[in-house]
Amino acid sequence: MAYYDYKVAGASLPPPLTDKLRLYHVEMNPYGHRVLLVLEAKRAKYEVYRLDPLNLPAWFRAKNPRLKIPVLEIPTDQGDKYLFESVVICDYLDEKYAANPLHSRDPYVKAQDRLLIERFNELIKGSLECFDTNFAFGSEQIIQTLDIFEKELASRGTYYFGGDRPGMLDYMIWPWVERLYLLRCVNEKKFDEKKTIFPNFADWGDQMQLDRVVKKHSSSPAEYFDYYKNARTHTMGYYL
Amino acid sequence: MAYYDYKVAGASLPPPLTDKLRLYHVEMNPYGHRVLLVLEAKRAKYEVYRLDPLNLPAWFRAKNPRLKIPVLEIPTDQGDKYLFESVVICDYLDEKYAANPLHSRDPYVKAQDRLLIERFNELIKGSLECFDTNFAFGSEQIIQTLDIFEKELASRGTYYFGGDRPGMLDYMIWPWVERLYLLRCVNEKKFDEKKTIFPNFADWGDQMQLDRVVKKHSSSPAEYFDYYKNARTHTMGYYL
Repeated sequence: MAYYDYKVAGASLPPPLTDKLRLYHVEMNPYGHRVLLVLEAKRAKYEVYRLDPLNLPAWFRAKNPRLKIPVLEIPTDQGDKYLFESVVICDYLDEKYAANPLHSRDPYVKAQDRLLIERFNELIKGSLECFDTNFAFGSEQIIQTLDIFEKELASRGTYYFGGDRPGMLDYMIWPWVERLYLLRCVNEKKFDEKKTIFPNFADWGDQMQLDRVVKKHSSSPAEYFDYYKNARTHTMGYYL
Repeated sequence: MAYYDYKVAGASLPPPLTDKLRLYHVEMNPYGHRVLLVLEAKRAKYEVYRLDPLNLPAWFRAKNPRLKIPVLEIPTDQGDKYLFESVVICDYLDEKYAANPLHSRDPYVKAQDRLLIERFNELIKGSLECFDTNFAFGSEQIIQTLDIFEKELASRGTYYFGGDRPGMLDYMIWPWVERLYLLRCVNEKKFDEKKTIFPNFADWGDQMQLDRVVKKHSSSPAEYFDYYKNARTHTMGYYL
């Protein structure tokens, strides 16, 4: 992964914001990945400060006592402020920056998309189950969630959940889907078999990989595979 | 409680919507209470169908297999649809109906309010703890959460979280605060002592009780006290 303005958060407080937003991010963290995608989709000016989750700087702990990650630092009338929760951050960016609206303008479609983003949490939980303890149970949760998204794409009849281009729902779920491709490194045949059960979703994934925004912040299946292979030694970074 | 157009959901599917929205609600359910407040604040036309959570009609189960409550039924281009999750429903209503905007137009303030609505879940969890098993732990969670809201009101320097009138954050937390007053029935002296620790929040509560919207859907401390006294015999209705 190569971001522009990619810095390591060190012992001293970063300077006040000037012309850029600032994301505090743990490398390979999927929630931070969401924010990176939306920053890029909105063509915002931003810099990324890399955090070591096992060694958070004192100034970061002081300004963020609940130790939430990712954090977006933004300019406000009351000075630079921290904003938390990837979904709240991304909705903020979509409202603040008019370029390339990501949420539907139809309040009902937007509400549906928000419910689907929440529903997707079951795939996230399933991935954690797989990783941790219970592969059979976890993969069943993943399959059940993918089935919902497969049917949703079919009923929308569009390439993307957002229509003819990726929208908020597409970007909110993408980080975990990009990581699912690492399963191809584990068992190529089984992965390709599963893919045929979800033809619309598989096509969506292929399209997403070609998206300018997605490409900017993508890692390869092999990179994820290597990362998660070693993840037991740095689970903090995985969970955060 | 007396709503206009308050009906009991029976064995047969209600007719399609004509000129009103329709809320499926379990009496005394605080999440449904949120939606009632926002429907009223937006001056929407609505009817309320009362559900018995221990005896949900077959048509309701079929249209809502995850058995989520409350549900708002709304007209869309694809016919009448169910919408779930009180916060999503309320945001939908605020976007759909221009009258009396409840969210701040400032995306940062709106994001802060969304985070505070989420933070308030800890008071909800605390209330359940008190009710269930662990009064000491639960009341500590309540006190800690109230402290955050006390400081937030002080720092905003306004009567309401929404400024000079109640906004989305005010209405989203109100149902549980209204229920907190039942503690006065348990121990009046202790309740009044606690109240003095949170002067801004206590004033806010007094103001809220005078609000037209709040008054429309309020129950008295004695009514809540009676309800929760018997709640062990109908916990389903309490939890849903």
